[in-house]
Amino acid sequence: MDIEKVNSMDFGEFVDVFGNVIERCPLIAAAVWSKRPFSGLGDLEKHFFAFIDGLPLSGQEGVLRCHPELAGRQLPWGWLTAESQREQSAAGLQNLGAAERLRFTELTAQYRTRFGFPFVLAVRLSDPAAAPRELARRLRCPPAQELRTALGEVKKICHLRLADLLGEQP
Amino acid sequence: MDIEKVNSMDFGEFVDVFGNVIERCPLIAAAVWSKRPFSGLGDLEKHFFAFIDGLPLSGQEGVLRCHPELAGRQLPWGWLTAESQREQSAAGLQNLGAAERLRFTELTAQYRTRFGFPFVLAVRLSDPAAAPRELARRLRCPPAQELRTALGEVKKICHLRLADLLGEQP
Repeated sequence: MDIEKVNSMDFGEFVDVFGNVIERCPLIAAAVWSKRPFSGLGDLEKHFFAFIDGLPLSGQEGVLRCHPELAGRQLPWGWLTAESQREQSAAGLQNLGAAERLRFTELTAQYRTRFGFPFVLAVRLSDPAAAPRELARRLRCPPAQELRTALGEVKKICHLRLADLLGEQP
Repeated sequence: MDIEKVNSMDFGEFVDVFGNVIERCPLIAAAVWSKRPFSGLGDLEKHFFAFIDGLPLSGQEGVLRCHPELAGRQLPWGWLTAESQREQSAAGLQNLGAAERLRFTELTAQYRTRFGFPFVLAVRLSDPAAAPRELARRLRCPPAQELRTALGEVKKICHLRLADLLGEQP
């Protein structure tokens, strides 16, 4: 899909295509549509990032809370988006051994309690061994720093999903 | 459900229950969770409204763009949320005659083009005859005024859905 095609979309089509580049936050794509026309991938993602950066603290936490638990318990709403499933599967997180999975689940629960949002990681840029290490490291970070780190992961995921949709190299 | 129950929810449960009181905007419920504890329905909805009011213009338009078309063509994503379906059905909009429906669809298309978001109406507070009249009236309003009117309808819908969930009289 080229950028002229993107710029020709009405808001319904735009939200349909880009509504999940920020996981379960179609509101953000729907807002970004106001900023068209876009000159390319970099310009498009700039507006997604700027919207997140402009949210109040509660809204930034809200973006994170719309993300699924990595390799975790089933969420109350009981499903992963197709994008998330593909990404987690590619990172090998579905294949953790029973003991590793239990340990990972314990640490993600500690993380949720400590920070008030789930552990978010751009797993496509990671390897299966790195995710538990990264979780253990980030669990010890100060909350304000960890919020910034987590939003950075959201932006990496957004970049990868936009590149996929536009058929560009990330 | 009483307010103590609401205040005891973790963010996953809260987003699961309240994620659609603003249509397709779980981000907002996820943000409002930061403001707990809540003293009651009025306090809870105050935080939903404040979040919307604090969004930039593009974000407020984005909230509106997450709403389905009233009695309109199928959306690209092809479904109505259960809440929206129930509300539209109660308002009798599924029962418009063919000519009325065509006229309504033409006017909602004009509305979308003029304002850049769909026509949103708290149909549970309306009657089937009033919706087309209201649409024709609002189509002639200045854009800034119509944005305020439309967000007011979003808040009415939010109030009704919260009251349903808490088992209170709206």
